[in-house]
Amino acid sequence: MRQYVLPKTFRGEPSLVLKEKESQYLSKVLRLKEGQQILGRDQEGKVYQLTIEKISKQQCTLSCHQVKEDASVQTTDALPSYSGPYPNLTLMQCLCKGKKEDQIVRQATEIGTREIMLIQSRYCVPNLSSKNEKALGNRFERLNRQVKEAIQQSGSPIPTEIIPEVITLSELPTWWNNRGPVLFFHQSKRYETQKTLHEIVGNLPIETPIALLVGPEGGFSEEECTTLEDAGFHPVLLRTNILRSETAGIYALSAIQTIMTEKNT
Amino acid sequence: MRQYVLPKTFRGEPSLVLKEKESQYLSKVLRLKEGQQILGRDQEGKVYQLTIEKISKQQCTLSCHQVKEDASVQTTDALPSYSGPYPNLTLMQCLCKGKKEDQIVRQATEIGTREIMLIQSRYCVPNLSSKNEKALGNRFERLNRQVKEAIQQSGSPIPTEIIPEVITLSELPTWWNNRGPVLFFHQSKRYETQKTLHEIVGNLPIETPIALLVGPEGGFSEEECTTLEDAGFHPVLLRTNILRSETAGIYALSAIQTIMTEKNT
Repeated sequence: MRQYVLPKTFRGEPSLVLKEKESQYLSKVLRLKEGQQILGRDQEGKVYQLTIEKISKQQCTLSCHQVKEDASVQTTDALPSYSGPYPNLTLMQCLCKGKKEDQIVRQATEIGTREIMLIQSRYCVPNLSSKNEKALGNRFERLNRQVKEAIQQSGSPIPTEIIPEVITLSELPTWWNNRGPVLFFHQSKRYETQKTLHEIVGNLPIETPIALLVGPEGGFSEEECTTLEDAGFHPVLLRTNILRSETAGIYALSAIQTIMTEKNT
Repeated sequence: MRQYVLPKTFRGEPSLVLKEKESQYLSKVLRLKEGQQILGRDQEGKVYQLTIEKISKQQCTLSCHQVKEDASVQTTDALPSYSGPYPNLTLMQCLCKGKKEDQIVRQATEIGTREIMLIQSRYCVPNLSSKNEKALGNRFERLNRQVKEAIQQSGSPIPTEIIPEVITLSELPTWWNNRGPVLFFHQSKRYETQKTLHEIVGNLPIETPIALLVGPEGGFSEEECTTLEDAGFHPVLLRTNILRSETAGIYALSAIQTIMTEKNT
């Protein structure tokens, strides 16, 4: 545990009462005692020094004191030494089976992905178009738990957001609305010339929105590749083996974050 | 399935009989029929076109015909479009709990890591020094199954090897014997100047042996960091959040493979 993600309702009040699960998380899981301190982060990314004022069976009272990100604060644990800047990364992930999706969301959040969008494409094994709203709601609730845990463990200053809907590949260009380059990863040999990751992102300002589109286990069809190219998305053949969907996303996120942070800082 | 990993006993014979599990893998899992073809790779990395000559309940007979790596071979599936060169990467991974270790080995193999060495360090949760030989043997057997599956799925031309022993952090410099740079990943702020990954590996020839040392969940102690530095290992603070051990390895492997293959090709 590196930081505590404050409730969505928190608005910088000097004192905060946590109940039930949230209270137990601090007292039982993290085993914090009265008088101990921990860092908290609110939904906007502001950092607070939290002091445990009182713990009872039912609830736990905290005092909250906003601090600067890089202030040296005495807590039970520290924030990571690297404090940014971070590139502005969106992961567009074609649907995978549940456990794989959990792993992808968790690792993407750890790394500091800003936004995750789930996509239905032709070769996706799960088909969510037939699911009712409740099943979809449960899926997003599960993924949001992964996000929260990953932010707390990794100390990430990026409030990763999972867009709460599933769209199709063909709706993607309209949704993205030319915010910045979109890279998609394929295994075909159809492109004569192909830019490297360094060539595509190496000279962009670090705040440029960049989206990475990762196919499902079955990859993209020829027709899908053409559609994506017509929309101006960059086809990228990673210089590695055929990666499973859950490896491809983190591979590309890691490579691009490294290129952008090392060129820009 | 992209390629079949041939048995260790295979020495290029024109015909091969597979029994039991191996036979069932081709006939039941991959559902190959008589007359169909698939690519195989032997322990040295040579590629064969395999034709299913006969399938019975007990066994399956293949004819084997060695082919060039980049030959266009008619099979049920193709090798990846990228065929090298690959950097020469060793992952030195401090022990994690079983499931995490499986995931790390699997993803490292997919990416094309040449060698994986398991390390016992101070903050490792599992302690293998007290385990008997049989338990250790089972652990390596399980990890080797992950390697084989990952090579088959990813089409990797790298015959990833897990070194079948666990050594301590202090034994590491002697074992590595100055083959090339070793990078280790930490979260402390003790180093005034720190080289980027691009600076450390960006100008090395792609065949240079490079080792990445990833700590356990608890990280490295101050004392361990000093020992590693004294051995000439490079401390690296990744420009990202605090990553879990299973994310740190793949993050670093992806970043370094991308830097080296894009600079060298």
